[in-house]
Amino acid sequence: MKFSKRTNRRQMLRLSALAMGGGLLAEKNALAVETPGKLGIPLGPYGDRSPYEKAVRWTRQSKTPETGSSFTPLQDSVGTLTPSSLHYERHHSGIPDIDPAQHRLVVHGMVDRPLSFSVADIRRLPSVTRTMVLECGGNSGSEWAATTGPDVQRSFGLVSCSEWAGVSLALLLKEVGVRPGAAWVIAEGADACRMMRSAPLAKAMDDALIAFGQNGEALRPAQGYPMRLLLPGWEGNTNVKWLHSLKLTDQAYMARDETAKYSDLMPDGKARIFTYQMEAKSVITFPSGGQTLPGPGLYELSGLAWSGSGRIERVEITTDGGKTWVNARLQEPRLPIAWTRFRLPWRFDGREAVIASRATDETGYVQPTREALIAVRGTNSGYHFNGMKFWKVRADGTVTNVEA
Amino acid sequence: MKFSKRTNRRQMLRLSALAMGGGLLAEKNALAVETPGKLGIPLGPYGDRSPYEKAVRWTRQSKTPETGSSFTPLQDSVGTLTPSSLHYERHHSGIPDIDPAQHRLVVHGMVDRPLSFSVADIRRLPSVTRTMVLECGGNSGSEWAATTGPDVQRSFGLVSCSEWAGVSLALLLKEVGVRPGAAWVIAEGADACRMMRSAPLAKAMDDALIAFGQNGEALRPAQGYPMRLLLPGWEGNTNVKWLHSLKLTDQAYMARDETAKYSDLMPDGKARIFTYQMEAKSVITFPSGGQTLPGPGLYELSGLAWSGSGRIERVEITTDGGKTWVNARLQEPRLPIAWTRFRLPWRFDGREAVIASRATDETGYVQPTREALIAVRGTNSGYHFNGMKFWKVRADGTVTNVEA
Repeated sequence: MKFSKRTNRRQMLRLSALAMGGGLLAEKNALAVETPGKLGIPLGPYGDRSPYEKAVRWTRQSKTPETGSSFTPLQDSVGTLTPSSLHYERHHSGIPDIDPAQHRLVVHGMVDRPLSFSVADIRRLPSVTRTMVLECGGNSGSEWAATTGPDVQRSFGLVSCSEWAGVSLALLLKEVGVRPGAAWVIAEGADACRMMRSAPLAKAMDDALIAFGQNGEALRPAQGYPMRLLLPGWEGNTNVKWLHSLKLTDQAYMARDETAKYSDLMPDGKARIFTYQMEAKSVITFPSGGQTLPGPGLYELSGLAWSGSGRIERVEITTDGGKTWVNARLQEPRLPIAWTRFRLPWRFDGREAVIASRATDETGYVQPTREALIAVRGTNSGYHFNGMKFWKVRADGTVTNVEA
Repeated sequence: MKFSKRTNRRQMLRLSALAMGGGLLAEKNALAVETPGKLGIPLGPYGDRSPYEKAVRWTRQSKTPETGSSFTPLQDSVGTLTPSSLHYERHHSGIPDIDPAQHRLVVHGMVDRPLSFSVADIRRLPSVTRTMVLECGGNSGSEWAATTGPDVQRSFGLVSCSEWAGVSLALLLKEVGVRPGAAWVIAEGADACRMMRSAPLAKAMDDALIAFGQNGEALRPAQGYPMRLLLPGWEGNTNVKWLHSLKLTDQAYMARDETAKYSDLMPDGKARIFTYQMEAKSVITFPSGGQTLPGPGLYELSGLAWSGSGRIERVEITTDGGKTWVNARLQEPRLPIAWTRFRLPWRFDGREAVIASRATDETGYVQPTREALIAVRGTNSGYHFNGMKFWKVRADGTVTNVEA
């Protein structure tokens, strides 16, 4: 693209002039269009995306596809939400087929009045709406070793953000009457493996939700239809899907997924358990591994930041491997425990560059380097990695992991 | 449901106790579940909703289904977003099949450098994200007469809310260099009818966007894939879909859809044209026409409010036909020109009740009554109805229009 030689243009304007592949208009092409006079597709009941759009979740080939993970294509994300169809999955025995007319949520154990709630009961209660991230406790676990995925989807894709609608768990607990001595809530799913996790009563009484809605419609089956537990800011696995039982107890259940799994084996051989909290994290999604810049010029770097502890206060970007950092522009509104998209103009001059982002949340917590994490936690565990992610932009415009 | 006789419960708690259809738990049913031990559906690339969920857009039967409207099922909405699959449609010649590799946006006319932008060009520019309502200028037009739809979908369903991602139109206009004397931008779509609308240059330079993303993924075909114009707060028709041309001119085009259509014929026989702005509006979605309350008890009234002029400041609800009003609780964050969900506990005592909501926006504008609107504008026009919507809750719990 040619552009005039105004000297007083702002950075944003030069960015557009230099970055675009577009060109001066040949007038004969001015109104060239694709569908001259041909009627299009009629109105319809429930729409779909364009057949030209191909972004899909990625899943490792498996002989047991009912258990495993599917990764959200973060490199194709725009804005601050994940389409429900592309929300990451982590299932242990597949997605159960649940008839909402038959489903019940029972709240029992150390309570005065055990109660059974139908889906209609739950949907009729006072509700709230909350835009919130869910992140698997094992997201980016391959970053601990040097075996990480080649792109942002396969390395960081077990995180998604939705607008959830649900009922305060505290409301239900007040209805059943929690007995003295109760200290834990054991949540159980209706999937074949009966996924179980223990949550302290204090969390259940604080901000826990029973979600029935996602992005404006009913919760999707892959996210727990007809209802799931949401524990804001806590690792995905605790947000039990297909929720059918909440049992009040005086002790944690010590379920498989809070002892053998989703615990952190430290360098001294002891394991931390109940490490629920997901800390501040960010990753550059453009440009990221597997993408190619078409040539030198100005670009807009873009990525996502979030924290289980609240709002994102700042995201800094380095383009020189960590020597210098500048503040990125943050998309408003910045909501607590939700994705904040960040953006920054950057001139790629055709020389190799190493880029990364670093998030700071409202508590003042700063996303650490991978090395700082390993110094404390070692590499025995695959969980709770929130280190910075460095991408290498090669001279030819291709983008890879720094180790590649 | 039985409940204990605590006398110090808060309203919210009594609401749950009285409103629920649930019941005391028979211990033998405590862990009854639907899918004992059976593996569910595997992980997948692009998910779908539950087959038990049936909400769809409503379309009038037509011999020309490429032209017309489909209405969003507001009665089934949760939260503050519309799933892209359920976003209302208003097409004039169907949805074109556009290959994004072929599509171009040309910006020409009274400019220094006419430019042609590919989809990749547009997606690479500095972008912003904005959650925003689109509302058809003809939404709830049947309320002017006594011929309105029987439910909130068919009477108020030509409005939806999405998170959009796009590029500032002002950025493109600065690139092409607007010539002195240019005062209008003529936007044209690539659909078969070449939908055209004129927008004043001032709006184009203010907050207009070229949107390429919707709810975290590419814009849907039914909403203008691969790109559309967004004019925040202005009637839907001006937000030209499948945008392929922006022409700078010194005069409006006087297109069909800004003269014969989408203009307001006043009682004196003169027509107002270029009445772009959508004013503050609200509607109760639960309970609403066609729904039935299962019996007396406490319920949570819920609905949606929005304004083309900015944030919603207040929503009041009447349950006695307009004699008294109380403030509803507003879901945060309240974003400008986006849906704000409102909620209010209400006791249905089994006697007929007439309910309605009334929105006030940040400019101080108060949603008027239908009668106040008609006193000014008459009933010649079907556009720009934003009057209050009254529902009648009958003694038997059925809900209808007040006129029914």
